[in-house]
Amino acid sequence: MSTSASRRSFFKQTAVLSAAGMVLPACESTPPKQAQIPDRLRILFQGDSITDANRDRSSIQSNDFLKGMGNGYALLAASNLLIDYPTTDWHTYNRGVSGDKVFQLSDRWEKDCLDLQPDVLSVHIGVNDFWHTLTDSYEGTVETYEKDFLKLLERTQSNFPKIKLIIGEPFVVLGGTAIDTEAWIPTFRAYQKAAADIATQMGATFIPYQQVFDTAVADQGVAYWCPDGVHPSLAGSALMAKAWIEALHKAYV
Amino acid sequence: MSTSASRRSFFKQTAVLSAAGMVLPACESTPPKQAQIPDRLRILFQGDSITDANRDRSSIQSNDFLKGMGNGYALLAASNLLIDYPTTDWHTYNRGVSGDKVFQLSDRWEKDCLDLQPDVLSVHIGVNDFWHTLTDSYEGTVETYEKDFLKLLERTQSNFPKIKLIIGEPFVVLGGTAIDTEAWIPTFRAYQKAAADIATQMGATFIPYQQVFDTAVADQGVAYWCPDGVHPSLAGSALMAKAWIEALHKAYV
Repeated sequence: MSTSASRRSFFKQTAVLSAAGMVLPACESTPPKQAQIPDRLRILFQGDSITDANRDRSSIQSNDFLKGMGNGYALLAASNLLIDYPTTDWHTYNRGVSGDKVFQLSDRWEKDCLDLQPDVLSVHIGVNDFWHTLTDSYEGTVETYEKDFLKLLERTQSNFPKIKLIIGEPFVVLGGTAIDTEAWIPTFRAYQKAAADIATQMGATFIPYQQVFDTAVADQGVAYWCPDGVHPSLAGSALMAKAWIEALHKAYV
Repeated sequence: MSTSASRRSFFKQTAVLSAAGMVLPACESTPPKQAQIPDRLRILFQGDSITDANRDRSSIQSNDFLKGMGNGYALLAASNLLIDYPTTDWHTYNRGVSGDKVFQLSDRWEKDCLDLQPDVLSVHIGVNDFWHTLTDSYEGTVETYEKDFLKLLERTQSNFPKIKLIIGEPFVVLGGTAIDTEAWIPTFRAYQKAAADIATQMGATFIPYQQVFDTAVADQGVAYWCPDGVHPSLAGSALMAKAWIEALHKAYV
C-alpha cells in the first residue's frame, strides 16, 4: 500500500469528525511505526459459531457476496476494512462452522482453508473443545486441543510459508446465562493458555479476547456484550471486530 | 448523554490509532456543535431488500438478537453505535422487507413501526417503486410514491410527535449489472427528488445516498461498491452505514 494504514485512518476519521460537527486542529505527529499491508490480500476467517454467525453457506465467494460473511465480527471487521482501504484488492472469506472444535477444522481444512490460498488466516476456536465435554460427552482434553491446533497451523504454514496467522483467544463471559462458573473455571483457562502458547510458538498475532470482554463487562455488564457468556451480542461482535482490526495492523507492523 | 458524541468519538478513535502505532498530538479544539443524543433510544430501520439484508425473520427483538439485524447497513450502523455509546440504553430494530414498495410499508406499519414506538425512524424506500414498473408490471407512478410516502410519515408523526425521521435517498448505481441506464434515467431522478422534497417537508434528516455512491464509484468502480447497481456490496453497505451514523448525529444537533 502506498500510504500508511495509520495515516489513511487518520484522514478518514478527521473527515468523519468534521461531518459530525467537530473540527480537529491542524497539528499531528509522525507515527513511529506504520502497518504496511499489501495491496492484494486474501483474508480467511475460521472458527466456530462465533465466526459463522449465521452465514449463508450457499454464498462462499469473497466479500463480493455479502451473505456469506454472516452477521458477526467477521462481517464487521471486513466491512470496516473495505471502507477504510478502498483502493486495495482485498478479499475476505468466512468459513466458520457452528459447533466446530479444532479437529473438525482439520477435517475440512483442505477445502475450507488450503484451497482458498489465504494470505491472512484468522482462527478463533476452542470454546466447544471444552464446552462439549460438559454438554455432549466429548472426550477431548486440553492436550488434544493444543496438539491438534498446533498441527493444523504447522500444516498451513508449511503450505504457505509467508502466511500471517491471527489467533483469537477463546473466551467465556462469566455471568452469562449458559455458563456455570464452577464447571468452567479454572479448567477453561488451560485452553486459553494453550491458544496463547501456540500463538507464541507459531509467531502468530494473538487477540486477547478474554481481556477485551472482561474490560467491557466491568463497565457495562454481561447482557450488553455477551448475554449467554459464549455468543457475543451485536455490541460484543463490534468489540471483537475492533480488536481484530488492531491485530491485523499489528501483524503487518 | 453526559459527554458529547463528538468528544467520545474522538477519544475512542485516539485509542484505536494509538493501538495501531500512531500517537496523536495533545492538542484539540472545542467542537462548535455537539450532537445530544438521548440515553434511551429505540431506533427502527425500515425499507426494502437493502435494509432487510437477509435478516432472520424469527428474530424480531432488539439488537440483543443479532440475527434479526441482517447483514447490511442497518447491522453495520447499529453495531458501530453500540460500541461507540456503550453507556446508553439503545435498541435497534430492523423491519426491512425485500421487494417492498412504499404502499407495502403502509400495509404493515401498525405492527412493523407503530407498535415498536420508535424514537428514531429511518426509512429507505423507493427503488422498487420504480424498478417494478420495468420488471413486474407495477403501475404505481412517482405521484403514487410521493403521496403514499408522505401519508405514511404524517401518520407516524401524528402518533409520535417527537420522533426523529431519517430518510435515505433511493439510489441507483449506473453501470451495475442489473441496470439499463436509458430505462432508469431520467425517470428515477423524479423519485429521488420526491424523497428529498418529503424530507424537507417533514423536517427529516436526508441521507444523499446517490451522491455517496457517485463519489465512491468515481474512485473505485461499480463492482466494488454496488455490483448490480441496486444492492450494495459489503463495502457499499459500510459506506451507507457511515452516512447513516452521520445523519443520526445531524438529527440530534
